[in-house]
Amino acid sequence: MTKSKNLNVGLVGTQFMGRAHANAYLKVGRFFDLPLQPVMHTAAGRDPGRTQAFADRWGWANTTTRWQDMVESDAIDLIDICTPNNLHKDIALAALEAGKHVACEKPLSATLDEAREMRDAAKKAKRSSKAQTFVWFSYRGCPALALARQLVQDGKIGQVYHVRANYLQGWGGPATPLVWRFRKEFAGSGAHGDLNAHSIDAARFVTGEEITEVSGAIEETFIKQRELPGDEGGNIRGKGGAAKKKGKVTVDDTVMFLARFKGGAAASFEATRLAIGCQNENKLEVHGEKGAIRWNFEDMNVLWYYNAQGDAETNGWQRIMVTDADHHPFAHAWWPDAHILGYEHGFINLASTMFNQIGGGKLEVPMADFEDAYQTQRVLEAATLSARNRAPVKISEVK
Amino acid sequence: MTKSKNLNVGLVGTQFMGRAHANAYLKVGRFFDLPLQPVMHTAAGRDPGRTQAFADRWGWANTTTRWQDMVESDAIDLIDICTPNNLHKDIALAALEAGKHVACEKPLSATLDEAREMRDAAKKAKRSSKAQTFVWFSYRGCPALALARQLVQDGKIGQVYHVRANYLQGWGGPATPLVWRFRKEFAGSGAHGDLNAHSIDAARFVTGEEITEVSGAIEETFIKQRELPGDEGGNIRGKGGAAKKKGKVTVDDTVMFLARFKGGAAASFEATRLAIGCQNENKLEVHGEKGAIRWNFEDMNVLWYYNAQGDAETNGWQRIMVTDADHHPFAHAWWPDAHILGYEHGFINLASTMFNQIGGGKLEVPMADFEDAYQTQRVLEAATLSARNRAPVKISEVK
Amino acid sequence: MTKSKNLNVGLVGTQFMGRAHANAYLKVGRFFDLPLQPVMHTAAGRDPGRTQAFADRWGWANTTTRWQDMVESDAIDLIDICTPNNLHKDIALAALEAGKHVACEKPLSATLDEAREMRDAAKKAKRSSKAQTFVWFSYRGCPALALARQLVQDGKIGQVYHVRANYLQGWGGPATPLVWRFRKEFAGSGAHGDLNAHSIDAARFVTGEEITEVSGAIEETFIKQRELPGDEGGNIRGKGGAAKKKGKVTVDDTVMFLARFKGGAAASFEATRLAIGCQNENKLEVHGEKGAIRWNFEDMNVLWYYNAQGDAETNGWQRIMVTDADHHPFAHAWWPDAHILGYEHGFINLASTMFNQIGGGKLEVPMADFEDAYQTQRVLEAATLSARNRAPVKISEVK
Amino acid sequence: MTKSKNLNVGLVGTQFMGRAHANAYLKVGRFFDLPLQPVMHTAAGRDPGRTQAFADRWGWANTTTRWQDMVESDAIDLIDICTPNNLHKDIALAALEAGKHVACEKPLSATLDEAREMRDAAKKAKRSSKAQTFVWFSYRGCPALALARQLVQDGKIGQVYHVRANYLQGWGGPATPLVWRFRKEFAGSGAHGDLNAHSIDAARFVTGEEITEVSGAIEETFIKQRELPGDEGGNIRGKGGAAKKKGKVTVDDTVMFLARFKGGAAASFEATRLAIGCQNENKLEVHGEKGAIRWNFEDMNVLWYYNAQGDAETNGWQRIMVTDADHHPFAHAWWPDAHILGYEHGFINLASTMFNQIGGGKLEVPMADFEDAYQTQRVLEAATLSARNRAPVKISEVK
Repeated sequence: MTKSKNLNVGLVGTQFMGRAHANAYLKVGRFFDLPLQPVMHTAAGRDPGRTQAFADRWGWANTTTRWQDMVESDAIDLIDICTPNNLHKDIALAALEAGKHVACEKPLSATLDEAREMRDAAKKAKRSSKAQTFVWFSYRGCPALALARQLVQDGKIGQVYHVRANYLQGWGGPATPLVWRFRKEFAGSGAHGDLNAHSIDAARFVTGEEITEVSGAIEETFIKQRELPGDEGGNIRGKGGAAKKKGKVTVDDTVMFLARFKGGAAASFEATRLAIGCQNENKLEVHGEKGAIRWNFEDMNVLWYYNAQGDAETNGWQRIMVTDADHHPFAHAWWPDAHILGYEHGFINLASTMFNQIGGGKLEVPMADFEDAYQTQRVLEAATLSARNRAPVKISEVK
Repeated sequence: MTKSKNLNVGLVGTQFMGRAHANAYLKVGRFFDLPLQPVMHTAAGRDPGRTQAFADRWGWANTTTRWQDMVESDAIDLIDICTPNNLHKDIALAALEAGKHVACEKPLSATLDEAREMRDAAKKAKRSSKAQTFVWFSYRGCPALALARQLVQDGKIGQVYHVRANYLQGWGGPATPLVWRFRKEFAGSGAHGDLNAHSIDAARFVTGEEITEVSGAIEETFIKQRELPGDEGGNIRGKGGAAKKKGKVTVDDTVMFLARFKGGAAASFEATRLAIGCQNENKLEVHGEKGAIRWNFEDMNVLWYYNAQGDAETNGWQRIMVTDADHHPFAHAWWPDAHILGYEHGFINLASTMFNQIGGGKLEVPMADFEDAYQTQRVLEAATLSARNRAPVKISEVK
Repeated sequence: MTKSKNLNVGLVGTQFMGRAHANAYLKVGRFFDLPLQPVMHTAAGRDPGRTQAFADRWGWANTTTRWQDMVESDAIDLIDICTPNNLHKDIALAALEAGKHVACEKPLSATLDEAREMRDAAKKAKRSSKAQTFVWFSYRGCPALALARQLVQDGKIGQVYHVRANYLQGWGGPATPLVWRFRKEFAGSGAHGDLNAHSIDAARFVTGEEITEVSGAIEETFIKQRELPGDEGGNIRGKGGAAKKKGKVTVDDTVMFLARFKGGAAASFEATRLAIGCQNENKLEVHGEKGAIRWNFEDMNVLWYYNAQGDAETNGWQRIMVTDADHHPFAHAWWPDAHILGYEHGFINLASTMFNQIGGGKLEVPMADFEDAYQTQRVLEAATLSARNRAPVKISEVK
Repeated sequence: MTKSKNLNVGLVGTQFMGRAHANAYLKVGRFFDLPLQPVMHTAAGRDPGRTQAFADRWGWANTTTRWQDMVESDAIDLIDICTPNNLHKDIALAALEAGKHVACEKPLSATLDEAREMRDAAKKAKRSSKAQTFVWFSYRGCPALALARQLVQDGKIGQVYHVRANYLQGWGGPATPLVWRFRKEFAGSGAHGDLNAHSIDAARFVTGEEITEVSGAIEETFIKQRELPGDEGGNIRGKGGAAKKKGKVTVDDTVMFLARFKGGAAASFEATRLAIGCQNENKLEVHGEKGAIRWNFEDMNVLWYYNAQGDAETNGWQRIMVTDADHHPFAHAWWPDAHILGYEHGFINLASTMFNQIGGGKLEVPMADFEDAYQTQRVLEAATLSARNRAPVKISEVK
């Protein structure tokens, strides 16, 4: 194959998200017909041995412990950032400056200031080098959410009255040690940036509307001290190996907020790691004048839809199994009806979007770019401010 | 009020079903506009003290320990039989002979011979005295099943391919003592007459088709000996008070069978008291060329419907909350949408049918009469024969 | 029977709630063993003909168009108020003054000022005449919610982290006419007093904790004008018969708010009539350190419970069918396991509480008295203030 | 790497199953630590161009149009058969004869005679060349079914009373053309071998018990003629492109049967392509003396479990999200809790079993070998005989 057909990817970060993205690069070309072929060119990580092991396992051709190497290399076309949030900005700015396409895990950054810088750099790079930016709000790649967006765009929901987004996890009980996700210097925030970021993006993505105000908010850290993890490189949630010594939790366990959308919709958001009994309940509900939709990631292949104009005798919530190759987003790439997809397929589907966008193919859904992710970051910031200032916050005042 | 407006009821039996029927008579006139007013005239039971207590509690004006008194009394218009199955026939025949309307709990009788006699007596009485007969297949009174029937009649299901009826209870584990329901002399059969009777009736009621053959069957008594109950008059399922001595179980724990309907549909039926974890899962599923329906009594207000002609993009099983006063059977009589009904409402709704039928009012669904219940009894018998003879049995050969 | 065994009830109001309460008085003595027998003595309504028809249907011995007659009558022991909210106070105060027990529909009143007056009057009457007060937060009578409370009290939930209460109805779309529930002069508020009142009570009832702050709120009236109903006496939701002329809606369509409980729990509440697709989704979720519970009225017999201490291999949300006569509140009074209850049973169960409390019997759950309902009213008021002032409101400052 | 570390795979068949297996070989080494590394060595297919395209897409190093080439090549260690059922035997026998390990799609073969030959050849090869055999009953690789088996083995179910297996698909309506799956010469049978094969295997796998008798059966072809497909190489279910001309359907649309297990359990099986509204409802239920389990592939990550010894106050079906890395089969290889798996993961998990078994690693669950799959084939045959002979059939008599 010629260079014009390949796109060489450099990946920074080899933990949970590094693995999810590597899997996406491995598979996307097998299931989708793409204008460009992903090449797993270089993997970067801090620890040389672990980085090499990761590369061997996944088939990355090269490794480095300096992400700067990839920025400096002509061979790399796209840099994909899977580091802790506090490192997103420096890598992204350098990569954009070097004319690379940049993909970045969510949330865009640990602070709004960083997000603004990234957004500005992306805008500049787009003009100067046609570099494109992508943010991995992976749930956009779930066919059911993509269909939900389509139904809104087709007018099946009408004026939106209500949005309800709950992202409920329960792994953050008192027994969980102080892994990096509980430390502000690495994570920026707790459940808020981790989970509400997804919910805000999903709500904006599905409704096609911007949030204009956070009307009230609660931010809380119920568990204020946690045992230090015995080995920080362990399981992402620090299971096993906790030492006796405790350290201070510097991020939230939960952030809840009320909000308004541009079209007037009244919304509530809740992200928590203390919803005991819930594991990964990423839920979104939208009610409008003409219809409504409901989705829960734990049953991710199903979208519930209510058509207010349905025949009254038989009307009810419809359980749509979003796996019909002829009628549902992304389904053509996979298996027969109801041979269901899982978590990782969100990433693979979005990877198809990314390669199609760079290569000039047709998009089934748009991925967020830095501008788009910056809007989500403003809402995150507004919610934090609202909780701390105990007052509503207009998004237009958060920049 | 004048006699022409009232209908005097005599009830035989004061246990579980006696109570459910008494409640129906108490309430039906409050919720439905009826051409005849139910009068709770006389309650009959074996034990005078308990019968009087029952009457006091429910408002029966008179009591007797001889059901014959009611047959002989001019005051009684309708005799309602809630005794163990082995007593149905004698009471029904006497009452019909006396020109009374007769309502009877299901199954129609303990044996097919009795059922035939009852059917014949009903036919004769209908001609001679215009006496009407009714059998309490109470689930016909669940609005969701009534709607299911309506959808079939309206052609929304089309040719029926499959019927699947499971009535799963789990109370019959080894710790349950030998109450009358485990003894053939009182009950006639076990799960078969108790539960399959409901399922067969429901399947016939909803599809509007007769069963033509039992194609194979299993009858099993897993628990062959049970402790004798300490007090037979206790809880209907004999909780508490078991003595050490054991007695023989003379009915089935489960009967499962395969069947064919007249239109060709292939069907399966299962009734059991040993479906551990299930309490009262009375389920019916029908799949046809144009659509399908699903129902589970434990969520009795909901009917699931699939419209095979629905728009492919959004098609899926529809969760119909069958409580819309303007569009759903019986719903006009009750509460606002989704202010749900319970078990007892099946009886009350059927009571409205009964009084409307006797009084010349309009029926929302038909109750089974003795002829209709005899058809169900034939299927029960065919299944028993099929299990014992280890061969298919044509219904036409079971009379 | 002697007077000491009966309790004569006077009912004010003959619409939706009048009917639900009449049904409860009719049935409670049949299913529960009570220290006092309810006597349906007098029904009061504005229209003499309709009141008489109501009394005939339900078996009220007497009627009046002046509720004052009942206050003045020595024969009446308990006055039960089912009028629009704006009339609660005058009737309650007069009845208490006359030494009657008083039961009142929720919300306690249309305004907090009225609620305070009623609370004070109840306190005074309790001392002077031993009159008792009751407020019909009917969902306390749902066995599943009563069990939820029990689990919290038994320590199975531990410290509460989260409360999530959504009461979602969808009947208030633009086509629904301007019935009294949309007019402030009759209703006081819209979804807020109608639905959030239930949710606040339920959250307080189950957790046993008081709300200390409303942290932020949204109040919205999406549909600002509605067609005048053709006949105000029609269906409670004004279906059918709408005229062309429009009038102004003077209550909310939705009120959403965030709140804190005394023990620190972070909570969200949402009440709406514009959740298209939802009919009567009254939902409550509580997550604590040791366990969690979930409930949805539309499947009211089921309580979901998660035991954080469960065996990890098999742990998961448990679907409790709350119908076990030996282990679940109120279940002893009804039918065998999973022979489910419906909406009306909440009222009947609470009626048993009321008669037991007056008669000195044992309570399965407490009903709210005026003091208790006043606490709920304060939270309602705080949420309204929070929405209007765009600021958090301490409950301690709302009196 | 040395030869001892690699295992070279030759794949025969490039359609639906060819793709599912290729994906498994691609991924299994990335997610599991294996004693042998899968090498995608050669793909074989009838059409050279399509086979090459398949190989290019999936990364097979070589292609051939003669599967005999692989049998004859020393380079190939394992031959994996994904052809229509009628070709399984010839390929398997040749491969075993050549000392290759053999993996084969289910059902083992189109006829029982072929299955017996394959079983015998496998037995012989095992002795002579240590060749191993595997059959892809892919649902054994679903963690929830693997956990179900574990619960039975741990004694949590006790004596099994009931097994209920329904595999319901609805794609076979009258509009579906005559693809190979409707033709006996290619498929051997219809829903029976396609779907009941899975259910029989799953029931045997989970209970650990053999079926001893088919007690009765129904076999039916409702749609007797179908339009010839425009292009047989299209979509596996022939969507689109139907010509006008019709041909005869020579396989069943549905087979239902009743059965007994060795321990006495009474069972029902149903496979159909005419369960309108169902897409891929592969369901299994087992009730025993001590507990029960329920599973539905469409929500494949969840196992429902009922513990009959649970605390009565809170007991109920438990929804186990089978994704806990520390406690559930296969979960350690994948993502955090409730980051759910999909259809394809069943194959990948089983591939890990296969490579572990050949390489001497530890098995999480056993795959079926030819002996095991032959037992399933006997039950398939017995059901067919029972339906045709209209009589019960002992499995011991079917050889």
